[in-house]
Amino acid sequence: MRKAGLASYGPDSMGGFIVTRPRGYALWEKVQENLDEWFKGTGVDNAYFPMFIPESYLDKESEFVEGFDPEVAWVTEGGNQELEERLAVRPTSESIITPYMSQWTRSHRDLPLRLNQWCSVVRWEATETKPFFRTKEFLWQEGHTAHESAEEAWDETVTRLGQYEKLYEDVLAIPVMRGRKPEHDKFPGGETTTTVEALMPDGKSLQGATSHDLGQSFAEAYDLTYVDEEEEEQVAHTTSWGLSWRALGGLIMTHSDDQGLVLPPTVAPEQVVIVPIWQEDTREDVLQYSTEVAAELEEAGVRVHLDDRDERNPGFKFNEWELKGVPLRIEIGPNEVEDEELTFAHRPDGEQSVVSRDGLVDSVDAHLDAVQEKLYESAEERLEENVREADSPEEILGTIGKHGGYVKTPWCGDEACEQVIKEKIAAEIVMVPFDEEHEPDADECTLCGDEATKTAYFAKTY
Amino acid sequence: MRKAGLASYGPDSMGGFIVTRPRGYALWEKVQENLDEWFKGTGVDNAYFPMFIPESYLDKESEFVEGFDPEVAWVTEGGNQELEERLAVRPTSESIITPYMSQWTRSHRDLPLRLNQWCSVVRWEATETKPFFRTKEFLWQEGHTAHESAEEAWDETVTRLGQYEKLYEDVLAIPVMRGRKPEHDKFPGGETTTTVEALMPDGKSLQGATSHDLGQSFAEAYDLTYVDEEEEEQVAHTTSWGLSWRALGGLIMTHSDDQGLVLPPTVAPEQVVIVPIWQEDTREDVLQYSTEVAAELEEAGVRVHLDDRDERNPGFKFNEWELKGVPLRIEIGPNEVEDEELTFAHRPDGEQSVVSRDGLVDSVDAHLDAVQEKLYESAEERLEENVREADSPEEILGTIGKHGGYVKTPWCGDEACEQVIKEKIAAEIVMVPFDEEHEPDADECTLCGDEATKTAYFAKTY
Ligand SMILES: [Zn+2]
Ligand SMILES: [Zn+2]
Repeated sequence: MRKAGLASYGPDSMGGFIVTRPRGYALWEKVQENLDEWFKGTGVDNAYFPMFIPESYLDKESEFVEGFDPEVAWVTEGGNQELEERLAVRPTSESIITPYMSQWTRSHRDLPLRLNQWCSVVRWEATETKPFFRTKEFLWQEGHTAHESAEEAWDETVTRLGQYEKLYEDVLAIPVMRGRKPEHDKFPGGETTTTVEALMPDGKSLQGATSHDLGQSFAEAYDLTYVDEEEEEQVAHTTSWGLSWRALGGLIMTHSDDQGLVLPPTVAPEQVVIVPIWQEDTREDVLQYSTEVAAELEEAGVRVHLDDRDERNPGFKFNEWELKGVPLRIEIGPNEVEDEELTFAHRPDGEQSVVSRDGLVDSVDAHLDAVQEKLYESAEERLEENVREADSPEEILGTIGKHGGYVKTPWCGDEACEQVIKEKIAAEIVMVPFDEEHEPDADECTLCGDEATKTAYFAKTY
Repeated sequence: MRKAGLASYGPDSMGGFIVTRPRGYALWEKVQENLDEWFKGTGVDNAYFPMFIPESYLDKESEFVEGFDPEVAWVTEGGNQELEERLAVRPTSESIITPYMSQWTRSHRDLPLRLNQWCSVVRWEATETKPFFRTKEFLWQEGHTAHESAEEAWDETVTRLGQYEKLYEDVLAIPVMRGRKPEHDKFPGGETTTTVEALMPDGKSLQGATSHDLGQSFAEAYDLTYVDEEEEEQVAHTTSWGLSWRALGGLIMTHSDDQGLVLPPTVAPEQVVIVPIWQEDTREDVLQYSTEVAAELEEAGVRVHLDDRDERNPGFKFNEWELKGVPLRIEIGPNEVEDEELTFAHRPDGEQSVVSRDGLVDSVDAHLDAVQEKLYESAEERLEENVREADSPEEILGTIGKHGGYVKTPWCGDEACEQVIKEKIAAEIVMVPFDEEHEPDADECTLCGDEATKTAYFAKTY
C-alpha cells in the first residue's frame, strides 16, 4: 500500500493517523463519484454539519453515548481559553444532525428528509494502525434520513445497503454478502443494523458498509416529530448509513498480488498504459504510432497514459505500472507499427493478445471489461469456496482455524453462544443473511442445542 | 440567507458554527466542480492529510505559530485519556503538509509537487458569527506546492490567483481586483500574499481568496530540500493558496435584493423554473405543454424544475422561487399554449419577454447568458463607481465614511501610515494593485509625506 504510493503513516506522535496520497485519494474520488450520483438520483441531498458536537448533545441518547464515548476525541481549549463545555470531534453525526432535522420538520409534507455528508470522523481506538482499515480518523459518507413510518425507514435502510452492494460488486469487483448484524452487535441505540460483508484473501471478513434502521429512539431523544394528515403529532423513524475508506482497504487487499496493486478499470486512475519499445533506428516511428494510439483513446474518454520516458527501459516501466495496478498495458514495438497491430497485456494474469489497430477503442473497451470480469470472478470463486458448514462448536473452531472464511451454522440468537467461539478464537458472528434468517438448516442451535431461529455466519474480522 | 434555506446557526453552546443546508451546500459543490477541474487541468493532485497537527509540528515556523496560535482549537483528550501532546485542529495545513512533501522529494525530478485538499479548518476567533463570512469552522480548499526556483513559485502563486479571479468573475459574476497584501498583513511566515478583493453592496471589501508565495521559510523549517542537476542540495520554494465558503457569502451578498436571493445561472441548483398558470378547464393542456417544455430542457442539460403543485397559486410560487433566486422563470398559461409561445422573466430585474416555442433550448441558453451578464454588469458598475481618490488623511476618512468603497492613494509602504486611518475608522489597506504598485499617482505618501512607492487601496473589511 505504501510502496504503490497510496498512503503514508501520520506523524510519529500521532499513531493511528494516515496521509492519503494522490493515488490513494484518486480511488476515493471514484468511490465518491459513483455513490454520490446514486444518492442524488434517489432523493438524497448533500449538506454539511459542524465537525464538533457539544457533550450535552451526545449525551441525549443513552445507548449511543455508552457505545461511542470511549472512542471520542475531545476539544477542550480554543482561542487560548478553556471551553465551558467539551466538544466531541464527531465520531458519527446522529446526535447533531437529528436535532436539526427536528427543526426542519413540521408536517408529514416535510418527510422523507434525506441528507448526506462527505467528511471525516474520529474514533480513538487503541489498536494498531492499518491504512484504510483501522485509523483513528477516516473519510466516509454518512447518510441520515427521517420518515413517517417504520416500513419506509426499513425500505430506506435496504435501499442504501443495495447501493453499497452495487458499489462493491459493480465498481470495486468484490462480491459481498448482505445480512443483519446480531442484536448485540448493532449500532448503539438503533433497531437493526444491516451490513455487506466481503471475504478478504487472508480469510477474514471485511464489514464493507453498514445501513442502520434506527427505529424511533433517536427521533425521541432529539424530538424529531411531525404532524400527520390527521393533524396528530407523531414521532418520526430514522435511518443512518455509511461507507468509509475501508472500501479502499478492501479493494487493495482483494485484488493485489506479489507484483503489487491490481486496480479494476472502473476506478483505475490510468486504465491503460502504453509502453513503447524502440531501438535507436525505430524510435521515431514507434513514438509517433504510440502517440496516435494514445490520442485516439483519450479522445474516446479512456484514461490512458503514454510512458515515453527516455531514461527508463521497457522492463522497468512494466514493473512500475504493474506495481501501480494499471489494468491494461499496450506494448508497441517496430513489429506492431509495421503490422498495424498492438499487443495487449492484462494486469491480473498477464494474458497477452495481439489486436488490430483498426477498432482500437472497441478492443480496449472489450479488454477492460474482460479484466473487470476476471477480477470479480476470481474474488467470487474465493468466496464460494470459503463458505462452509459446521455441526458442532469444535467443527466451527476447527474449520475457521484451518481455512478461515465463513462458517454458517444454525443459531438460537443468544450472544452467549457467540462467546463460546469468540473466547477461543477471534471469530464472531459477522451476519445473519436476509434470505435465510427464518429458515436455519437444522432445528437446533449448534452451540447450545436450544431452538435455532437463525443462520449465523461466523468469521474472523478486522 | 437563513430564509432562503442556505444555512442555520450551530448549537447554542457553539457560537461561530453553522450548518450548511442542502441549498447552500449545492452552491459550494458548484464552486468545487469548477475549481477542481481547473486545478487538475494545471497539474494539481488532490490528497488528504490528518485534521490534527501535533503542537511540535506547528511550532517549527516561528512567525507562523505566532500568527495562528491564538486561534487554535486543541484536542487534549482521546479515548478517555489525556494526550501526551496537544493536537491542533488544523487552522491551515502548511505545518503538516510541508514535512510530507519533504519525505516525498529527493531530486529536482520530483518537483514541482502540487497538492490540494478539500476540507474544513477551524480558527477560534472571538467575533460575531456571520454565516459563510465569519465562522469558527469553514470549508475550503488549500493548495500546497513546492518548486525549484523562486520564479516558479511566484508563477504558481499568480496562476492560482488567476483561477480564483476566474471563479469570481466568470462563475460567480463578481468582478474582483487583484493585488498584494501589505507586508504587515501577509501570511505569517510567507514572502508575499496576493489577494482578489470584491466590493460588497454595503461598501466593504471582501477578501475573496489568497495565494501565498511562501519563499523558502517553510521549506527551511520542515527540511524540504532537493538535489539539483549538479547534485547539489537545495532548499525548495513553496506556495499555498486557498478559497473558502466566503465565496458563497460574497455571492449571496452581491446579488441578493429585497425579494431574496439571486443566483447566477452558472451555479443555480435550478436554472429555470416553470410555473404553469391554469383554470380548471385549461389545466390539462397547460400541464401537458409545461411537461413537454420541461422534458426538452432537461434533455438538453438545463437544470429545470416544473412547479406543478396543486395546492399553491402562481403568485405564491413566483415569490418562493424569487426568494430562492432561480435566474429564469418560464410562465405558461392558456395563451402561451395556444400561441405556441412562452413568457420568460429574468430574476434580477423582472424583465419579461415572450418567445416562440420553437428554438426553446437556444432561447433559454441566450436568456441565461443574458441574466449572467446582467448580474456581472451591475456588480461591475458598482465597483467602478466606488473606487475614489484622496489627497489627504481627512479626505480618506471622509470618503470612506461617506461612501464606503475603495479609496486609492499614494503610500510609502509603512504600516504606521495605515494605523492613522485604522485608528479612526475600521478601514485598512486591503491591497496594492499589481499593475500600479511601482507607479503611484503622486510622489508623496498621502499620510506622512515621505516618498510614495505604492498605491494603496483603503477599504472597510469583514
Ligand atoms: Zn444457542
Ligand atoms: Zn507614509
